[in-house]
Amino acid sequence: MRIEALCTGDELLTGVTTDTNSTWFQQRLLEHGAQVARTTVVGDVREEILEAIQTLSARAEVVLVSGGLGPTADDLTAEVAARAAGVSLVLHEGALAALRERFAVRGLTVTENNMKQVMVPAGSEVVLNPAGSAPMFILRLGKALLFFVPGVPREYRALVETAVLPRIDALRAERGETGFRVLRLLKTVFLAESHLDARVRPLIALHPRVTFGFRTKFPENHLKLMAEGRTREEAREALEAADAAARPLLGDHLFGVDEDTMAGVVGRQLLARRETLALAESCTGGRIADLLTDVSGASAYFLGSAVAYANDLKERWVSVAHTTLVENGAVSQLVAAEMARGARQIARSTWALSVTGIAGPDGGTPEKPVGTVFIGLDAADGNEARAHRFHGDREWVRSASAYAALDWLRLRTRGTAS
Amino acid sequence: MRIEALCTGDELLTGVTTDTNSTWFQQRLLEHGAQVARTTVVGDVREEILEAIQTLSARAEVVLVSGGLGPTADDLTAEVAARAAGVSLVLHEGALAALRERFAVRGLTVTENNMKQVMVPAGSEVVLNPAGSAPMFILRLGKALLFFVPGVPREYRALVETAVLPRIDALRAERGETGFRVLRLLKTVFLAESHLDARVRPLIALHPRVTFGFRTKFPENHLKLMAEGRTREEAREALEAADAAARPLLGDHLFGVDEDTMAGVVGRQLLARRETLALAESCTGGRIADLLTDVSGASAYFLGSAVAYANDLKERWVSVAHTTLVENGAVSQLVAAEMARGARQIARSTWALSVTGIAGPDGGTPEKPVGTVFIGLDAADGNEARAHRFHGDREWVRSASAYAALDWLRLRTRGTAS
Repeated sequence: MRIEALCTGDELLTGVTTDTNSTWFQQRLLEHGAQVARTTVVGDVREEILEAIQTLSARAEVVLVSGGLGPTADDLTAEVAARAAGVSLVLHEGALAALRERFAVRGLTVTENNMKQVMVPAGSEVVLNPAGSAPMFILRLGKALLFFVPGVPREYRALVETAVLPRIDALRAERGETGFRVLRLLKTVFLAESHLDARVRPLIALHPRVTFGFRTKFPENHLKLMAEGRTREEAREALEAADAAARPLLGDHLFGVDEDTMAGVVGRQLLARRETLALAESCTGGRIADLLTDVSGASAYFLGSAVAYANDLKERWVSVAHTTLVENGAVSQLVAAEMARGARQIARSTWALSVTGIAGPDGGTPEKPVGTVFIGLDAADGNEARAHRFHGDREWVRSASAYAALDWLRLRTRGTAS
Repeated sequence: MRIEALCTGDELLTGVTTDTNSTWFQQRLLEHGAQVARTTVVGDVREEILEAIQTLSARAEVVLVSGGLGPTADDLTAEVAARAAGVSLVLHEGALAALRERFAVRGLTVTENNMKQVMVPAGSEVVLNPAGSAPMFILRLGKALLFFVPGVPREYRALVETAVLPRIDALRAERGETGFRVLRLLKTVFLAESHLDARVRPLIALHPRVTFGFRTKFPENHLKLMAEGRTREEAREALEAADAAARPLLGDHLFGVDEDTMAGVVGRQLLARRETLALAESCTGGRIADLLTDVSGASAYFLGSAVAYANDLKERWVSVAHTTLVENGAVSQLVAAEMARGARQIARSTWALSVTGIAGPDGGTPEKPVGTVFIGLDAADGNEARAHRFHGDREWVRSASAYAALDWLRLRTRGTAS
């Protein structure tokens, strides 16, 4: 069964509003085992809306049309829908009664242009809107069933959830489409998309029920597994088989699944080991601390970060020796090592990470070009600092540095505490 | 001249990714005086992409096609474009050389599937990608000119900006489409959208050449002024008139225009006054430092931040008295005041800001519910701490706290140093 979406509204074509309704609908639909084949976005233009309704309803079994059901002059959807169906607009008494009640509660009177919102194409099925004035209506055009809902996210979601998805479920059941889909993201870090693809490619032929997709969110790359089956069980089994086959190929790059974040995984591991972390950040400027404290409950393992941008704060907050700074420069392996050591000593933490580098665009030299970053790690069993070179703009270097530091600790804190 | 956009990628139809590229493109296009007539989103399915390319190129003069130019098996766009044009894919030597160089710099080898990214439809014009491996290519199909760009936002934006928009400008000029639009964002902070709207509404009738729009990006609210004119001059004059009328209505809430950021404005003011800033952050967890150091050149005025999540780091890094912590609790006005005083003393900065609060979801008490935040400001002329109460989730509270602190300093550092 082919499902398409048609979104109407000038605001969706002029950069005013990003269409987040569709993202939400797609997610919910996928959870119901179905998928949108195409999304079309048109402005508040009669001919565009009409042409789109005609084309989509000739091609799909289900069309979700959103937007253009408001009271103003640029709300054209009901009028155009009636024209496409060759019927007139009629007043819906139930919707009018609901509108009057809704307004009475708020002490408002129903105006002429509000009446427009309760006019629906003759012969359509009406579903009252629990969250707004314009009702939803359902219209058959040829073999296609069209659901018309308001574009206001709160109203859109309420109506799609309670009136559209159950009807799609019923239609799919009638057609014997009892297929189920389950989805999993395997999240990797510092594994280029082309390398990820090359590693996973041999699996594709071996897992015919599973679609392999890729998603880039630097420095993360995600492998998306979508498994289909006639039963939820069958889909889940196919997913687990593909998951089990893929994991060894991703190796240490795999840091989490689905909603996991790098900082969340590191935090979970520290919590399990009852260990703590302190930081000393220079070029990442508080980014690592921010990522860690985005996670609720971080205070159980994260003690703090000395964001020591100025050199004398590197001395005062984390005890870097003045001579080390003078002799090696702030961006150096020795300074990174001392920053980590100092942070751990002063915070009395199990672990400390440090970062010092040149994020750019200025500050590079021939020996230490932009992207040169040193990361330190200090623990009871030793102190180490590593040199990195990241290629990209300021944001790229800062983000890669933050991930590299967290990833190092992730690998060191896997499993149980030694 | 009709312009349409075609976005490809399963992730855009399965709720994985929200299409923010289109929002950005629409905004930029509008600034160039043009508008998208329709946006179509299809998955990684050969027949869907082919049908869409054929339909759109029969209907529009310009089609921007994005996505599906990566190295993986589900990247089908170049192949389908060649099929639509009835040509074969050919290797582009210039793109291959650029790819090799790009990989060599990073110490990577070009794999078989990377080669796919430098195969383009025969006869197309190629534009090298400054930000990634896949080049852009331009193809004529009938009366339509099709621009094919990668979907990765950084690459998409770089290529649309430098190679697509100038070509659209030239095509419009050829056709005598000389209408001009100019745009300005007036950025406010801590002014609710409904209040912003109420303040500005009286201006709408007085400025017929100007469209007033609103954009919410908590805790910022932006007033978008778009002025139209037959000449650039005329559009610009209308814009300046509306701008001059709007500013007094926004008052102190107005912090910047267009590309300005809150942290950038504060930094610019500090730089102009040759003053410096240090921070002591608890519940914002490094967020303020991160915002400040996102700005290139921040080291000229930003010295550092003590992200003192643990209480004893509040004592050790910024000299909060143990008794103050014990008697008042870490989330208190006195602790905020001492954090700011200690940060300024140890960093020897002109200013210091501090934040301590309860971001939630846990940690609230009847006297200090979630969202309770104290912000301190220390300077040569005094020390002050203010109580705030923010209503929202963890991210909301952290973000509002960071903005409130920066905004306080913004208002204190306007104009020249005293």
